Amino acid sequence: NIDKLAQLFKEFPGIGERQAKRFVYFLLNKNPAYLGLLSDGIVNLKNEIQQCSSCFRYFQSKNGTICDVCTNPKTDSSLLMILEKDSDFENVRRAKVYTGKYFILGGTVPIVEKDTPRRVRINELLTQMKNKTPGELKEVVLAFSMNPHGDHTDTYIREQLSPFMQKLGFKITSLGRGLSTGTELEYSDNETIKNALKNRQ
Amino acid sequence: NIDKLAQLFKEFPGIGERQAKRFVYFLLNKNPAYLGLLSDGIVNLKNEIQQCSSCFRYFQSKNGTICDVCTNPKTDSSLLMILEKDSDFENVRRAKVYTGKYFILGGTVPIVEKDTPRRVRINELLTQMKNKTPGELKEVVLAFSMNPHGDHTDTYIREQLSPFMQKLGFKITSLGRGLSTGTELEYSDNETIKNALKNRQ
Amino acid sequence: NIDKLAQLFKEFPGIGERQAKRFVYFLLNKNPAYLGLLSDGIVNLKNEIQQCSSCFRYFQSKNGTICDVCTNPKTDSSLLMILEKDSDFENVRRAKVYTGKYFILGGTVPIVEKDTPRRVRINELLTQMKNKTPGELKEVVLAFSMNPHGDHTDTYIREQLSPFMQKLGFKITSLGRGLSTGTELEYSDNETIKNALKNRQ
Amino acid sequence: NIDKLAQLFKEFPGIGERQAKRFVYFLLNKNPAYLGLLSDGIVNLKNEIQQCSSCFRYFQSKNGTICDVCTNPKTDSSLLMILEKDSDFENVRRAKVYTGKYFILGGTVPIVEKDTPRRVRINELLTQMKNKTPGELKEVVLAFSMNPHGDHTDTYIREQLSPFMQKLGFKITSLGRGLSTGTELEYSDNETIKNALKNRQ
Repeated sequence: NIDKLAQLFKEFPGIGERQAKRFVYFLLNKNPAYLGLLSDGIVNLKNEIQQCSSCFRYFQSKNGTICDVCTNPKTDSSLLMILEKDSDFENVRRAKVYTGKYFILGGTVPIVEKDTPRRVRINELLTQMKNKTPGELKEVVLAFSMNPHGDHTDTYIREQLSPFMQKLGFKITSLGRGLSTGTELEYSDNETIKNALKNRQ
Repeated sequence: NIDKLAQLFKEFPGIGERQAKRFVYFLLNKNPAYLGLLSDGIVNLKNEIQQCSSCFRYFQSKNGTICDVCTNPKTDSSLLMILEKDSDFENVRRAKVYTGKYFILGGTVPIVEKDTPRRVRINELLTQMKNKTPGELKEVVLAFSMNPHGDHTDTYIREQLSPFMQKLGFKITSLGRGLSTGTELEYSDNETIKNALKNRQ
Repeated sequence: NIDKLAQLFKEFPGIGERQAKRFVYFLLNKNPAYLGLLSDGIVNLKNEIQQCSSCFRYFQSKNGTICDVCTNPKTDSSLLMILEKDSDFENVRRAKVYTGKYFILGGTVPIVEKDTPRRVRINELLTQMKNKTPGELKEVVLAFSMNPHGDHTDTYIREQLSPFMQKLGFKITSLGRGLSTGTELEYSDNETIKNALKNRQ
Repeated sequence: NIDKLAQLFKEFPGIGERQAKRFVYFLLNKNPAYLGLLSDGIVNLKNEIQQCSSCFRYFQSKNGTICDVCTNPKTDSSLLMILEKDSDFENVRRAKVYTGKYFILGGTVPIVEKDTPRRVRINELLTQMKNKTPGELKEVVLAFSMNPHGDHTDTYIREQLSPFMQKLGFKITSLGRGLSTGTELEYSDNETIKNALKNRQ
């Protein structure tokens, strides 16, 4: 019924009580064909979509369990970018400047670390590292948002990967900090100015 | 698949391409129980929810086709408020100041009128008028938003109802215009000041 | 110097520390002619501008101490609108719908009333009332913003004027509340809906 | 008078017609002491404040025509940061990470270049370059906002300084681009991602 369905929509990211209700009224005015498609799409989502067993992003599988980016021979497997979530992957992909592999962590590491392996795919990442041979991987790029959660995740992953750095012979980098497009110098915070200065070139 | 489902979510009110995609990723991370409930809720929405054959709002029917407001003996049937949509009804209801009946028009009258009866329930409204006996209805309250579409709908409904006014002996009113809560006089537009002055009391 | 001048600008309504500083840098880049005009304009402001001894608004006096609105024979002196401040006056004036006289209170009545006569021109208002003859004034329009301060001022002025109402034979009205231009019914608060319904017409 | 003074305030950065008027009403309600201080501060601004003959920023001169940053023996004179305006200088200064000298250009280079030397202090900059001896300057840091005007100014200054680079033996750098504090990867534009990736470390 209306209220129950509105409750479910309220869990959607960024959706409050009123908009959840509007969604229900919107659906009440749609034809059965649309409702059928939407309902089927939701319930079948996990059947048709698979999580890549290598990079852990969601993709539409025709056959096999590894996504097209991971299997593409043009992908540079000596580079590995670690990301928080699928929508970060999509946005980096859109920029068309990175040619290596990806690994979706599935979240940020909680600042008060508690049961981290259940929150992010750190065990899966470490397993991949254990299976690599020296020289196979040249660089791990940590690509997290510039906020406390992203910073903490960056620190945590660096610590976890450090035993493998020497053994496998790769370096760890983080996305460059600095002035982003549209930023006015006058209104930049100290941290951004500090990094923009450090990364001047 | 991801893109098809995102396309469907993009039709939701106020949802753009990026948020539609986020909805899909959100669902990919939910458990099957949630997906099942959501999917069922959507496909069964129209089975469990009925449109009241009197006021045309959506309600959860136990049995019968007339909603609880319309059948409630405490509802003052000499008053009829005409509203654009269900969420307007909900908001008026919340204010607990109106005790009459309602009629949901189902939309606003297009400014370039073309096939109006297919866009709003004008025929259904006129049929109700034809079936009323003189004295039964004392007042019709037009309750539309204060924007060009609402204004146009107000004008249109007044025209359509005018033949019934004398015959049935009711008057037509519109919601009062003026300063709304929080409005500062200094920043009010001319039209609002004009109405606030006209409706001073 | 820069910081002292920035401190003075920081007192301007709506101006924070950064913008105050920008004002100073802006002035440093202006020519001496502009600075001279601005400086003179500020220091001479009170010489050239007078406060009307009748309505208490600021106006540019050619000669005399009563403003052009108060002396205009077309102004309907049986109507008196009481306003908080000059910018409210300007905005009502812009709407060109009110033809009576004005009285600028000079502020809102503090909710915790303490030394009210020093905050608003209540004594000046009461003196005007004492000097009026019965029949001279037909209506006092209270035109305050729709917020707690405005509401409280409305109540206070009604109380203060009530002894004169019977004696002089005028009525007191307040600006009409209701839906203001652009307001959507769906998002209106209860108080606004209540008033819009009460003031329907 | 009111309107003339409001016109002058309307030239202030970020101030529209209404706020300019509010400034005048605000001043009308201030005491003569405040008005006197403000008026004096404005007209004397240029007497007390001097533009440094070396870096061209405004400073409060006790004696001499060179500012305290330029004369400070701790300032590293082998580094020169070129900035658009004084408020950029203030913000970089606040970050406490740069120890070199500054040069305030006084604006951005117009994209349709026309009479550039009248808009920015390019001639003054080139004169300083001509007077330097090889080895004296190791690096010029271009610190402009990340927008088309800043980009164009960056390009222009690089061109103008290039003849001096070899002769004097310095390099030209620009502030690093990348993710700035608070930036979410998901919502970054392609250019920012490209630079964040290029400047990874």
